[in-house]
Amino acid sequence: MEYFKQTLKVKRLGIDTYNESVIYIREDSYICQAEGFESQARIRIRFEDTCIIATLNIVKSNLLEPGEAGLSEHALMLLSSKEGDEIYLSHPEPLHSLSDVRGKIYGEEFSEASMAEIINDVVAGRYSDIHISSFLTACAGNRLNQQEIIGLTKAMIQVGARIAWSQQLVVDKHCVGGLPGNKTTLIVVPIVAAFGLTIPKTSSRAITSAAGTADAMETLAPVDLSFPKMQEVVERESGCIVWGGSVLLSPADDILISVERALDLDGEGQLVASVLSKKIAAGSNHVVIDVPVGPTAKVRSRDSADILKVYLEEVGKKLGIEVKVVYSDGLQPVGYGIGPALSARDVLAVLQGKKEAPQDLREHSLDLAGHVLEFSARVNPGEGKLLAKEILDSGKAWSKFQAICEAQGGMRELPKAPYMHTCVAKKEGVIKGIDNRRIARVGKLAGAPVAKAAGVDLHIKVNARVEKKQPLFTIHAESQGELEYALNFVEMDGNLIQIENEK
Amino acid sequence: MEYFKQTLKVKRLGIDTYNESVIYIREDSYICQAEGFESQARIRIRFEDTCIIATLNIVKSNLLEPGEAGLSEHALMLLSSKEGDEIYLSHPEPLHSLSDVRGKIYGEEFSEASMAEIINDVVAGRYSDIHISSFLTACAGNRLNQQEIIGLTKAMIQVGARIAWSQQLVVDKHCVGGLPGNKTTLIVVPIVAAFGLTIPKTSSRAITSAAGTADAMETLAPVDLSFPKMQEVVERESGCIVWGGSVLLSPADDILISVERALDLDGEGQLVASVLSKKIAAGSNHVVIDVPVGPTAKVRSRDSADILKVYLEEVGKKLGIEVKVVYSDGLQPVGYGIGPALSARDVLAVLQGKKEAPQDLREHSLDLAGHVLEFSARVNPGEGKLLAKEILDSGKAWSKFQAICEAQGGMRELPKAPYMHTCVAKKEGVIKGIDNRRIARVGKLAGAPVAKAAGVDLHIKVNARVEKKQPLFTIHAESQGELEYALNFVEMDGNLIQIENEK
Repeated sequence: MEYFKQTLKVKRLGIDTYNESVIYIREDSYICQAEGFESQARIRIRFEDTCIIATLNIVKSNLLEPGEAGLSEHALMLLSSKEGDEIYLSHPEPLHSLSDVRGKIYGEEFSEASMAEIINDVVAGRYSDIHISSFLTACAGNRLNQQEIIGLTKAMIQVGARIAWSQQLVVDKHCVGGLPGNKTTLIVVPIVAAFGLTIPKTSSRAITSAAGTADAMETLAPVDLSFPKMQEVVERESGCIVWGGSVLLSPADDILISVERALDLDGEGQLVASVLSKKIAAGSNHVVIDVPVGPTAKVRSRDSADILKVYLEEVGKKLGIEVKVVYSDGLQPVGYGIGPALSARDVLAVLQGKKEAPQDLREHSLDLAGHVLEFSARVNPGEGKLLAKEILDSGKAWSKFQAICEAQGGMRELPKAPYMHTCVAKKEGVIKGIDNRRIARVGKLAGAPVAKAAGVDLHIKVNARVEKKQPLFTIHAESQGELEYALNFVEMDGNLIQIENEK
Repeated sequence: MEYFKQTLKVKRLGIDTYNESVIYIREDSYICQAEGFESQARIRIRFEDTCIIATLNIVKSNLLEPGEAGLSEHALMLLSSKEGDEIYLSHPEPLHSLSDVRGKIYGEEFSEASMAEIINDVVAGRYSDIHISSFLTACAGNRLNQQEIIGLTKAMIQVGARIAWSQQLVVDKHCVGGLPGNKTTLIVVPIVAAFGLTIPKTSSRAITSAAGTADAMETLAPVDLSFPKMQEVVERESGCIVWGGSVLLSPADDILISVERALDLDGEGQLVASVLSKKIAAGSNHVVIDVPVGPTAKVRSRDSADILKVYLEEVGKKLGIEVKVVYSDGLQPVGYGIGPALSARDVLAVLQGKKEAPQDLREHSLDLAGHVLEFSARVNPGEGKLLAKEILDSGKAWSKFQAICEAQGGMRELPKAPYMHTCVAKKEGVIKGIDNRRIARVGKLAGAPVAKAAGVDLHIKVNARVEKKQPLFTIHAESQGELEYALNFVEMDGNLIQIENEK
């Protein structure tokens, strides 16, 4: 049921409000007078057969002519409308699922049906960021029990695409994140695929980090493959490394994560549902999950890791996939390079068996690949890592990686940054710590991941002894401005790398 | 500490985003590349000596020239800046108080200091709506204990202005809201002031209702008085009825309430802190609080009212003010008129002792005035209401009301609506219910409170017997468009007024 009042002509203002739809309306229109006295008033917009809900922003200038309504980029995309189209505005119906969120706040449990309705509403854009924030807050603090996490995971799978493979065993690996440079995927996938297991890996782009796995891979080959193209690559090479966003596996997750980041809130239930929904949607049934534990990693203590492990394994079991959780050392970045091209350089060094290859990246990749290989009936428990080492050292993984790159559209040359600055130790001593979050931020300020060559190249690792003025890391940038931007941050922030005098 | 990167020239886009500051930046600027890959990225803006935090919206069109940054109206106001000014952008420092919100989510208690810091950050605009939503959600569901509510109340008082009066006894009345037409304030204040008690009443404008008390009063006299002018009125007439917003008594409350409305979440602790902080800031020490209880009122059950009563009285005591909670019948609107002028008309009828005056409004006002008068040592317990009746019936309250209007700037003629439509009963029967929220919405859609003459005039009350086609209510509007807008809603929504056949 609709009761229309106003028909307005779309004007594209070119404002990107990320995942939130915004409609801009002149203050002298009826709808502003009826709805506009409140923060975040919500308006229903219909264009042809599509309806969305948008947040109202009031225009008090001549940005719009009478009879025009501006739409944010997201709203235009959701409506598939363009400048000049006629849209119909009306009052949104009350959001029924919000009462389930209120119920949760007052101590009730989410049913599977209410989780499904909430996630449906989120994906349809019926929740504003304010509503999503309230939902996430109501779920955080260990307030979701296992049944509710299962409901959330199922709901997130249902709203996205889901891939089915002809192979019976489909494996995957995933890292819960938090460590710069942790690009084991680019080494694990070719090892596992070279052995013949099916590993259709979808990765994310950077959100707060300097480079997501997809960003690093993109410096070496195209990653924004359509779903049929991804299938073709996997059928031919047993594995792929593509950007998850282009195959639309978990649209709900992308939206929830963006608000979680703004809140800096990592609900355990949310994390479990996020990871498992993506793996199940990708058609995997056996997954190794890497949980780096360290003081500046995402998971900061063994206790938190233990809680997460139980949820991941138990919820996975209930949803029909086998999950093996592997803890790893989250004390410092993995490898030396932070940024798309710099971490890809580390990956190539490992795959090509170069002697300067970062040993921590190599070892960690072999560990994970070993666990993945052991999902195969052909591999005995405990023998996976040795097998992975043989595949890597024989050059088969490197050949497979090149073949995957070719299949994805052709291998690329790594770009190099024209601007660099090396930061040195202000005193002699021993490296006691490297702040994962801050060093990633330096890389980001230097332009990564958009500037592919930008980032940070570490010259030291924790426990190394350094002399005064010894190089600690080099900032790489594609412009002088970005280099300075990153340097400013380094100069302001004293605690990136902790050096303590030996006694 | 600041590390600047970018200086941009302010452009006023004329976009009103309510309480949230938004900065619009071209996508090709450094700061977009460093910060803009996330929903709701936050940017620090400095202009001269003022710093604010704003949410980043990215501009992908020619809305801005290179070197320009757009600011939302709220951001311009906070910065006191105008088009052409140079602003400096930098990274906001991490919001320390957000970790206290996270702590609360994980089961910790808010300390008084953390409440103070959070409310400070909210008022300074350092919280985005997403953060405020998370804070409110973490507090709702009865999660604030008495100590935390005291902390929140104190914090809200500290960030606003606070009035001191020379009189020892300063009284006030407040209604927690939810009933259309409930304009007892305009009757209680002149009765109490005529008796000689000091009652410096500040009221709110409508948020979701069709008319706040300040809106109704404004049809009869100016309400946006400065603080010295308000003092002058109270010194001369013992009472006033002014808009709270103009005396800046509780800036935090205005911000929190706008997000609460969007969530449709009324946390008890939040409500108690909101009411008491405003009364204490206004310098009152004896307050009667009217809590209407009814199925479509704000407080829906006696149990909820009881919880609220204990909190209001106990927290009030701890903060040094005497609170008397009075329950009232929240079944239906009070009086007949809903909308600024229509409810003012009801008020005048009661003050002037007209026989068509709504008796429910008269009785309810006398009850409340009686309770307020009993704060005086000159009035014996139980005798307040009779005294109030004498003052009203003698015409002293009406004279006092006129005097207050004159003191506030001069009494006004009530406006009349040029467009009207009367809705009639579709069947005969007995009126079983009037939906407070929906009938208020009709008034709002008809243009109230901006269109002062607009609103709804009820012709019946609950339990009345009606014939088929008997008038139920008349919609008043200042334009044909608004009249139709409201009528559309009435036609769509069958349950505004429930009529049941008698058996």
